[in-house]
Amino acid sequence: MSHAAFSDLEIAHKLADAARAAILPYFRRADLGTENKDQGGFDPVTIADREAEQAMRAVLAEHRPTDGVWGEEFGRHDGSSGRMWVLDPIDGTRGFISGTPTWGVLIALSDGDGPFLGVIDQPYTGERFVGGSGAAVMTGPMGETALGTRSTSDLNEAIVFTTFPEVGSADDRSGFEAVAGQCRLARYGMDCYAYALLAAGQIDLVIEAGLNPYDIQGPIAVIQAAGGIVTDWQGGPAHNGGRALAAANAQLHAQALAILTQF
Amino acid sequence: MSHAAFSDLEIAHKLADAARAAILPYFRRADLGTENKDQGGFDPVTIADREAEQAMRAVLAEHRPTDGVWGEEFGRHDGSSGRMWVLDPIDGTRGFISGTPTWGVLIALSDGDGPFLGVIDQPYTGERFVGGSGAAVMTGPMGETALGTRSTSDLNEAIVFTTFPEVGSADDRSGFEAVAGQCRLARYGMDCYAYALLAAGQIDLVIEAGLNPYDIQGPIAVIQAAGGIVTDWQGGPAHNGGRALAAANAQLHAQALAILTQF
Repeated sequence: MSHAAFSDLEIAHKLADAARAAILPYFRRADLGTENKDQGGFDPVTIADREAEQAMRAVLAEHRPTDGVWGEEFGRHDGSSGRMWVLDPIDGTRGFISGTPTWGVLIALSDGDGPFLGVIDQPYTGERFVGGSGAAVMTGPMGETALGTRSTSDLNEAIVFTTFPEVGSADDRSGFEAVAGQCRLARYGMDCYAYALLAAGQIDLVIEAGLNPYDIQGPIAVIQAAGGIVTDWQGGPAHNGGRALAAANAQLHAQALAILTQF
Repeated sequence: MSHAAFSDLEIAHKLADAARAAILPYFRRADLGTENKDQGGFDPVTIADREAEQAMRAVLAEHRPTDGVWGEEFGRHDGSSGRMWVLDPIDGTRGFISGTPTWGVLIALSDGDGPFLGVIDQPYTGERFVGGSGAAVMTGPMGETALGTRSTSDLNEAIVFTTFPEVGSADDRSGFEAVAGQCRLARYGMDCYAYALLAAGQIDLVIEAGLNPYDIQGPIAVIQAAGGIVTDWQGGPAHNGGRALAAANAQLHAQALAILTQF
């Protein structure tokens, strides 16, 4: 491998920059083109989605030709390096088509053990949350701030977020509600931005289900770098998707997990 | 009255500027002080809330001494002019304490017929939505854009927002769900930002309940200036609070109202 010119962290920023530039011209456009890629439900793909992933793939083709790439829009190909860039150009398409600044560009760099570098980028607000490779930092309207999760130790003091009731099965929802019923506050509709808020020390838990690997790998790396924990609902790795429990710290994680394992 | 120096629109901007300056230092602070002002539920009042309202009241005392002021934090006093500034320094305190950029500063100027000038300001993203007195404009990360609601004419093409399931009675929720069930997409958790998105032509409907006058008067003026309609669930004025239906246009409003009048 010739990674001479740029570090992985620099490449991650290049990817996020490329996606931002591709996506922003389409955000809040009245004539935004969407199509229904999932006949059974509402899952629009936008032109912006595809252009952003192509722009990121071009960066990787130039600077990381031996790494694999797995993107939501154009699928997976393994490289020769044992490393994989996992990309979701627009996570939260429902938010995107509604104009809410809750969607994000998700980027992860993974090896056989899961993601070890991640980015959650919100192009419209100009916020970028980066974790791994020595970084745990956000930049945004208020400048640069270190990421760090909260020390909330009791579920009844916790703020929990989820995208439910819009996503997940009835069982998934019951699991979320069992935890949420014990929390101080439950909020909805933040898409991947909820993971960023957890890493930034603003909230305590995120509980989701029905995830694809590219929905969660970026958040996992960012949250872990900030001191948090992300697992599935049985306490195992979450980077293959499905159900995810993200917690600010081990104590809260254990309390939520004790409930979720029953679902 | 001596309104010599500044127009109402200029005063509205001064109020929003003053609130922004007062609130932003408290947003996302780890040591944010909250207290429970409603013993029955979770309704935090922050220091930022009070300081912002005081800052706005100081602007009005200087520039509009004969107008009345009605603020969420410090109550109502009528002036001699027959005009009333209606202020909610932080609408969406649950969002505020969670770090989401969905709360806003709400400002309205009303007379006996209701609000005729309004502002929805989001200090963190730097977005300001202004309607009335000849204005219908937003400023934000992408510069200045004219506000204008959408022409979506069928409920089944509409995107509807609400703060439910967190707010409202079981009846309120049933009314929302009866409409949402016919819509293309229902989203949650945006607080007053949903009204701004409607005025900006990004979504089609907002349905809420349990509102105070200061929660809705600013949004009413902004949405009306953008071409939309806001009423209660019976088609009457919404500026006294309670249940509100905000729609992008008359056709959609009629379709949603036909359902909501049954609740």
